[in-house]
Amino acid sequence: MNPLTSRLSFRTAGESHGGCVVAMLEGLPRGLLLDTKAIDAELRRRQGGAGRGGRQRMEHDAVKVLGGLRRGRTIGSPLCLLVENRDATIDELPEPTRPRPGHADLAGCYRWLDRDIRSTLERASARETCARVLAGAVAMQLLATADAVTFGFVRSVHRVRLLDSIPGELATSAVAALRLRRDATALYTLDAATSDRMLAEVQEAGRKQDTVGGIVEVRCAGLLPGLGSCLQWHERLDARLAAALMSIPAIKAVEIGDGIAAAALFGSEVHDPILPFGPGRESLPRSSNHAGGLEAGMTNGENLVVRAAMKPISTLPQPLPSVDLADGSAALAGYERSDLCAVSAASVVAESMVSLVLADALLARVGGETMDEFGARLLQFRAAIERVSRGSSSQKS
Amino acid sequence: MNPLTSRLSFRTAGESHGGCVVAMLEGLPRGLLLDTKAIDAELRRRQGGAGRGGRQRMEHDAVKVLGGLRRGRTIGSPLCLLVENRDATIDELPEPTRPRPGHADLAGCYRWLDRDIRSTLERASARETCARVLAGAVAMQLLATADAVTFGFVRSVHRVRLLDSIPGELATSAVAALRLRRDATALYTLDAATSDRMLAEVQEAGRKQDTVGGIVEVRCAGLLPGLGSCLQWHERLDARLAAALMSIPAIKAVEIGDGIAAAALFGSEVHDPILPFGPGRESLPRSSNHAGGLEAGMTNGENLVVRAAMKPISTLPQPLPSVDLADGSAALAGYERSDLCAVSAASVVAESMVSLVLADALLARVGGETMDEFGARLLQFRAAIERVSRGSSSQKS
Amino acid sequence: MNPLTSRLSFRTAGESHGGCVVAMLEGLPRGLLLDTKAIDAELRRRQGGAGRGGRQRMEHDAVKVLGGLRRGRTIGSPLCLLVENRDATIDELPEPTRPRPGHADLAGCYRWLDRDIRSTLERASARETCARVLAGAVAMQLLATADAVTFGFVRSVHRVRLLDSIPGELATSAVAALRLRRDATALYTLDAATSDRMLAEVQEAGRKQDTVGGIVEVRCAGLLPGLGSCLQWHERLDARLAAALMSIPAIKAVEIGDGIAAAALFGSEVHDPILPFGPGRESLPRSSNHAGGLEAGMTNGENLVVRAAMKPISTLPQPLPSVDLADGSAALAGYERSDLCAVSAASVVAESMVSLVLADALLARVGGETMDEFGARLLQFRAAIERVSRGSSSQKS
Amino acid sequence: MNPLTSRLSFRTAGESHGGCVVAMLEGLPRGLLLDTKAIDAELRRRQGGAGRGGRQRMEHDAVKVLGGLRRGRTIGSPLCLLVENRDATIDELPEPTRPRPGHADLAGCYRWLDRDIRSTLERASARETCARVLAGAVAMQLLATADAVTFGFVRSVHRVRLLDSIPGELATSAVAALRLRRDATALYTLDAATSDRMLAEVQEAGRKQDTVGGIVEVRCAGLLPGLGSCLQWHERLDARLAAALMSIPAIKAVEIGDGIAAAALFGSEVHDPILPFGPGRESLPRSSNHAGGLEAGMTNGENLVVRAAMKPISTLPQPLPSVDLADGSAALAGYERSDLCAVSAASVVAESMVSLVLADALLARVGGETMDEFGARLLQFRAAIERVSRGSSSQKS
Repeated sequence: MNPLTSRLSFRTAGESHGGCVVAMLEGLPRGLLLDTKAIDAELRRRQGGAGRGGRQRMEHDAVKVLGGLRRGRTIGSPLCLLVENRDATIDELPEPTRPRPGHADLAGCYRWLDRDIRSTLERASARETCARVLAGAVAMQLLATADAVTFGFVRSVHRVRLLDSIPGELATSAVAALRLRRDATALYTLDAATSDRMLAEVQEAGRKQDTVGGIVEVRCAGLLPGLGSCLQWHERLDARLAAALMSIPAIKAVEIGDGIAAAALFGSEVHDPILPFGPGRESLPRSSNHAGGLEAGMTNGENLVVRAAMKPISTLPQPLPSVDLADGSAALAGYERSDLCAVSAASVVAESMVSLVLADALLARVGGETMDEFGARLLQFRAAIERVSRGSSSQKS
Repeated sequence: MNPLTSRLSFRTAGESHGGCVVAMLEGLPRGLLLDTKAIDAELRRRQGGAGRGGRQRMEHDAVKVLGGLRRGRTIGSPLCLLVENRDATIDELPEPTRPRPGHADLAGCYRWLDRDIRSTLERASARETCARVLAGAVAMQLLATADAVTFGFVRSVHRVRLLDSIPGELATSAVAALRLRRDATALYTLDAATSDRMLAEVQEAGRKQDTVGGIVEVRCAGLLPGLGSCLQWHERLDARLAAALMSIPAIKAVEIGDGIAAAALFGSEVHDPILPFGPGRESLPRSSNHAGGLEAGMTNGENLVVRAAMKPISTLPQPLPSVDLADGSAALAGYERSDLCAVSAASVVAESMVSLVLADALLARVGGETMDEFGARLLQFRAAIERVSRGSSSQKS
Repeated sequence: MNPLTSRLSFRTAGESHGGCVVAMLEGLPRGLLLDTKAIDAELRRRQGGAGRGGRQRMEHDAVKVLGGLRRGRTIGSPLCLLVENRDATIDELPEPTRPRPGHADLAGCYRWLDRDIRSTLERASARETCARVLAGAVAMQLLATADAVTFGFVRSVHRVRLLDSIPGELATSAVAALRLRRDATALYTLDAATSDRMLAEVQEAGRKQDTVGGIVEVRCAGLLPGLGSCLQWHERLDARLAAALMSIPAIKAVEIGDGIAAAALFGSEVHDPILPFGPGRESLPRSSNHAGGLEAGMTNGENLVVRAAMKPISTLPQPLPSVDLADGSAALAGYERSDLCAVSAASVVAESMVSLVLADALLARVGGETMDEFGARLLQFRAAIERVSRGSSSQKS
Repeated sequence: MNPLTSRLSFRTAGESHGGCVVAMLEGLPRGLLLDTKAIDAELRRRQGGAGRGGRQRMEHDAVKVLGGLRRGRTIGSPLCLLVENRDATIDELPEPTRPRPGHADLAGCYRWLDRDIRSTLERASARETCARVLAGAVAMQLLATADAVTFGFVRSVHRVRLLDSIPGELATSAVAALRLRRDATALYTLDAATSDRMLAEVQEAGRKQDTVGGIVEVRCAGLLPGLGSCLQWHERLDARLAAALMSIPAIKAVEIGDGIAAAALFGSEVHDPILPFGPGRESLPRSSNHAGGLEAGMTNGENLVVRAAMKPISTLPQPLPSVDLADGSAALAGYERSDLCAVSAASVVAESMVSLVLADALLARVGGETMDEFGARLLQFRAAIERVSRGSSSQKS
């Protein structure tokens, strides 16, 4: 309903078979050097992963900057980015009449009180997430200037789950190694064996003319404490992350830290003990990170750990029972070209959305209208965090 | 970051030991007859449930209207509601120096770069949820005029889970019976035996000087299809519900419909087949409700089903290791008067937050500046939904 | 600070010498047939008028649709429009060091704490108003479906003022004739003689190497009563119109109805008597329209009448004293290619901004997610207005 | 429609004859020492001035803090302030049927499609401005910590205008003297003779059973440059000031700096030459201040100068022609207890609204979550402004 303590505005435009998708990002400081190749790399990652349909092989997404840049750097004005669609046939495509269960098709008919499924699905399509990745890749570049690094990967596909071998706390530097491991797998998980088993799940679904979902996880290392707020319900960072993740098509659950498991543990098992100040970081260390880096809607200096559960793709090769809205009769659902599994792509989109929310929170807390000012304030913020952590004998007025 | 397709603005003010808590609700139509006794009943429900500390026995919350009402009806202007605190000692209370793991204490020190834990916890306290219940009770009264009824209950406490005996679809009338069952239990769950076992969990925690959490569930029956939107990420109703639920103190996970379980099912198991139009409802029926009433960020005519997982209370009778910020030394965490288990209260707060989000979505979609206009448009909306469902042979232009 | 009772979101992107300017418009109903030629016509009008520099002759602005349209109609999703720039030299252009008094140059240096005048002026340039006209032309097409028509013209240039020959109330149909008169003049005023005298002012300024401003006026005929709100300060329609007009570069004053003159009149001279219901309109007639169609932040059924005063262009052919920020020494201000007088263009931009605010207020009050639903509600709204006007003996329910 | 670069949220609740009026202010830093006596003094000023009716003599407004304060200082959470009404008879007061021209009465009937004038006027009443003064007085205290001081006074009443004896630039210290002069006059203007002549206008109106308006002016001395933005139309500070002033009941025009007069001057007469850096201030001096301190939507270091024109009170002792909505017949307008002239009060409200907008812009630009952090950043901001002004030879990286 009503935001506060926010500085970044992010919105998208464009349809699945229109000319392009567009991301508009407002509130960035002046002077951020934009690495468009890194943006393109994220776009390509979004198009990859096993289980993807023909479209992803057809498109070769690349960013085009419409506004907000001079000589490769942001100038503070709205950053407007575009990716062209290869298949701009929105005016020619047929008008489906048999809504697919699980998709926007039928709910959209009710929202717009018509049977124009085409107009609804063109925007509700996962193609829109391309614009999110555009903006998210920019957010990641901003976070990098504060040594914060987000990292999204596939935690499970269908019944195959990556067993947890990731420390609760990652050093920023450790993430690079994890990225290499991830990018070497077909499914964007962390080891080849698990990826192979996940791939088998996807292939099995293909044989059954069915689809599968899974769980994606996003972490952020190097995240400063004190971001977010506990002042108003919609200012809490956990609420904003939950919204950002749940807004990704097909996501049906969001967890932070221990998530649902926390509900069945004792308080003494789930709250993370606070340890005295030590070298290597500004905030007080914890002996565990069950909270996933968030307490009372604010970051606490630990790694952010969030997960999102994706239901299987709702366009099934073997369609489910539906109704033909042309005459109200029972019919099988329509079929649009689609993927069997989009969990890998979802891990990229989730990383983008988390990056956007965190970049917003970081900018809102630290402030600064140029990268120079932001950088100077960042140093001061870090020093103040350390003073708080060391205890008041070290405090200057 | 940036809202749209929203009409209701909801915010709260007030501290735990200040004079009062306040809810401000903007965007209600003129002419809603406000039942203040029903609001008070929700306030009392929030104060009940097993496992509550001394404070809940001390306060006897009752609503006071500051603005927005004439002769018992809303007049369209901001509705401002207040509940007085009995224990208005904010200026006298001591200043804790040993932050409690899991609470706002330490993260707040980093956000404000001070050691003023008192100023942070006074607002981060669960007392603020009293204002949410104030506003939520109003939202429920608005929903009732459209025959929509929300219903929150306790799904689990610690390791004790209520086995699912609730149909995926509830008639609005069936909810009244469930409410009676719920309100007859100590824990706000649905049967006495489960409630007793839950109570035993709480008592066991008390004996261990520990705390427990649990899972709350909220349903909404009678909800119109076509609410929410798939147009912009922050407009999706699933995203808004996730934010609203995650913003409740101590919530660490949110699920919609099958939630996490959906990630391990096949598409053919998780998408809800669409059946031809039949008597008794405007929207097309489904043979299941795995989606929890939401597809692509919009309601589909089925019951809304959401769950939220609450971690155990972070104030432990037997405190966890912490640090004394006065000198930086290791120390046990401080203790503020608190509950052992607040899952029952959380079910009331969750019902309130869901009601607020749904009332917002309903008002945004149906519109109307008076209850008369809202009511007339509602009838038209229902009729149009039915026309869509019946198929186009029945469609008039 | 915080909006409410609003449904249309409008924002722009793009720089003066970047690749393009972009307008993003969210909240339009599905099904509006977009006349892109009419948009182009407004773009051309913005480029015309006497006193324009070389740039306007170089650009031939034409709209390109990036998203939100299918088969020529809006589909409800964000409408994203683009106009290309011919002179996309932002990376090559020199970096001015001598700020121009009256422009963003120096204030921008203070906002961004740098001397990067180029990065500031690229966005602060009047080229951005091209995106406003894009969006405004769409808003006008929406207003037209409700028989509301906005009309902007030049009221004065420098010391030459168009003497008022326009009735306080215009029929919608009368506006077409006024438009023809306006478009036949070089300066977008209402008669050739006045236009000639205005042109002489511009030419005189040119000879003096100086610049001139003027006053633009916008009217709206056919505007429904009851739009806007008196409930919260930022919801008032007069406040929103004032913001929208004052946001146009170089505008220094905004008036509604009698405006400043009202401050020196008696109440009996300035308030518009209410007459009994009569044929031809739904709302009660007035014997005058000093209020300019707005009472207490809401439309009252009369024509909207607003004016905005534009200061002279701040880039002077004969530069004013300034400072060279390279070394802090006194220097003459820099010179960028510019116009002598932009009042005609400002009348187009003002018409656009007023149209956007009114379309927003109309959509917010009437509602409807498709043009069909909007149209049906519009008829009901009109009928209800008439019932109110006729007095309660005619009231049903 | 959509804000950005804003941090302060300000809204009000309460009706004219309800129990109270309420202001909620979010976004203040923690640690601002609140002087409630100074707030009460502004409330009393609002009740004063010649031409006020019986109500102002009846109420003795005093602030009561509902939330956001501990030990006299803000704690960062929403500041919620209340003033009680003496005349809380909203449920008993009669329901007018004869709308007053110029007031919300008739437009409200159209907005709510009813004849419930009472429900509309209770909120549209000028009593709501009491809540604005509450919040504005807090904003002034925040501005004071940055040595910025706003000053509102009456520029004209009816045909009597205070001749300009105020320098374009006031030192912060000079404002105190002007305040004394102002507060010594009955009408809140700057000298006794003018005040007497203004008073005569009011008395003349009273004899004629008529009402009068006037012009209020607000200045701000000590205002930092670089506040506001030129990036998006709704971010411009001139637009926000225009909205804030136009939102005050009965305001029909807003001017900045030379305002309307600028439209008839040459560019060389109206733009303020920039002079080399000199002692005594951080920003580059100007030889004039025609711009009123704002260029391209940003402050430039000069005094802010704005004016707002108020129409005469719309409740006339000798009512204007109207219609009785009970039966649709011609009738004289109704009469509610009212003032003859409220220009003095409007000068207080205008000062409050300007203070709120400036405090918002200052907080948004400088940032800081505590007064300590705000203060430290303020010093850095001032130093950086000076470096920019001195020219780049003085610039460090």
